[in-house]
Amino acid sequence: MTVQPDRLRGGHFITLEGGEGAGKSTQVKRLAAALSARGIDVVQTREPGGTPGAEDIRSLLVTGDPARWDAMTETLLHYAARRAHVEKTVKPALARGAWVISDRFADSTMAYQGYAGSVGRETVAALHRLVLGDFAPDLTLVLDLPVETGLARAKTRMTGAAQAEDRYERMGLAFHESLRAAFHEIARREPERCRLIDAGGNPDQVAAALWQAVAARFNLPA
Amino acid sequence: MTVQPDRLRGGHFITLEGGEGAGKSTQVKRLAAALSARGIDVVQTREPGGTPGAEDIRSLLVTGDPARWDAMTETLLHYAARRAHVEKTVKPALARGAWVISDRFADSTMAYQGYAGSVGRETVAALHRLVLGDFAPDLTLVLDLPVETGLARAKTRMTGAAQAEDRYERMGLAFHESLRAAFHEIARREPERCRLIDAGGNPDQVAAALWQAVAARFNLPA
Ligand SMILES: Nc1ncnc2c1ncn2[C@@H]1O[C@H](COP(=O)(O)OP(=O)(O)OP(=O)(O)O)[C@@H](O)[C@H]1O
Ligand SMILES: Nc1ncnc2c1ncn2[C@@H]1O[C@H](COP(=O)(O)OP(=O)(O)OP(=O)(O)O)[C@@H](O)[C@H]1O
Ligand SMILES: [Mg+2]
Ligand SMILES: [Mg+2]
Repeated sequence: MTVQPDRLRGGHFITLEGGEGAGKSTQVKRLAAALSARGIDVVQTREPGGTPGAEDIRSLLVTGDPARWDAMTETLLHYAARRAHVEKTVKPALARGAWVISDRFADSTMAYQGYAGSVGRETVAALHRLVLGDFAPDLTLVLDLPVETGLARAKTRMTGAAQAEDRYERMGLAFHESLRAAFHEIARREPERCRLIDAGGNPDQVAAALWQAVAARFNLPA
Repeated sequence: MTVQPDRLRGGHFITLEGGEGAGKSTQVKRLAAALSARGIDVVQTREPGGTPGAEDIRSLLVTGDPARWDAMTETLLHYAARRAHVEKTVKPALARGAWVISDRFADSTMAYQGYAGSVGRETVAALHRLVLGDFAPDLTLVLDLPVETGLARAKTRMTGAAQAEDRYERMGLAFHESLRAAFHEIARREPERCRLIDAGGNPDQVAAALWQAVAARFNLPA
């Protein structure tokens, strides 16, 4: 399969990042709807997942015993899913000029396994380069929230299929604190690409803050 | 989990490699039985697989459409499974002094995705180093056979659960020819570790050739 080099792609790639229950899934939907309403061709997707093979890998990652995978195995599974997602969904959509909005992407692996987990930042970065080269989002919106608030919110979405997807939530408060610090650090290190967004307000308030960041970055009318 | 460094491990790690239908699964069983009969603690295992998580990954790899995964995704899935296998099965067994006999290991990824596939040798080697450092088998037995003979044999094992595991067999003759050349080259490049074994004889003849190589390498009485 041939894909357009980054320079030639018509669309834009936007990722939403942040800890458990920060509101990513809620806001990805709202952002996609807001862009669609302006006549933009939008592909809403998520990680791990976003293409049939990657969704199969997702189910290995998000269910079961928190100790099911050692951190390196987990990282490799995330990158396997990410590679499939990028090749089969993200790049083809960008090449035809669509905007792609993803619920999590590579920064989640860097935060969870690179900073907060035991794999280390250098190894995650080396793996990223091996698998995706310098492919990166145009804009990353990092939803920031006190850990307790996020975990309390995450519990409320625990119905139906999502109920089984609690492997990360069960990992303990210290883990989630270092995760939050990691996302802060990632946003601080790449200010061109990342915006840290206060996700503590109600959904309308957060959606407005996200829209402001997107409109500013891509010169859209407010 | 702590594991013994290589120098301190008591057991030995032996891998069987080769193309489809070369007789690996048949001979792993026989070699394990021959070692057990001499009072050696043997763990017989396989890749992809060898531990519950890795067996789950195996089912993603060996079933379905040959085009299901791009070559890099496939390589990452193999290394995810391999990492779990090494951490949860191979290293613990070696540390307690057992001999581990694996039906395929890293050379298969190097041959299938590095040489015969599109990922390239350098990328597979870099990934190996990132995931496993310099962990390697003590002895690798490469079963060598004309491609047509191997594929004809592989068809005969197509019963029951193994019947669905035909994704690689369906990949075409040219692929299998370059696979055979790759295994030759791997054995040629690492003569200390690898022995190329003629697998064209009947199962007793091949078992005898393998036993000779193992006995010579580890100073066992014939
Ligand atoms: N701004 C908000 N204020 C209060 N509750 C919210 C807000 N945004 C989302 N929620 C609710 O919190 C829960 C978690 O939200 P959501 O699923 O969007 O978060 P998430 O970041 O995708 O979580 P996860 O990391 O678990 O996938 C849901 O029940 C959702 O309805
Ligand atoms: N030396 C031999 N001569 C003839 N048939 C053999 C020989 N060794 C094994 N077979 C038969 O060939 C088939 C393939 O053998 P086996 O499953 O051991 O190969 P394999 O290398 O593990 O194959 P695969 O790569 O498909 O896993 C089986 O039906 C087996 O009984
Ligand atoms: Mg979510
Ligand atoms: Mg076999």
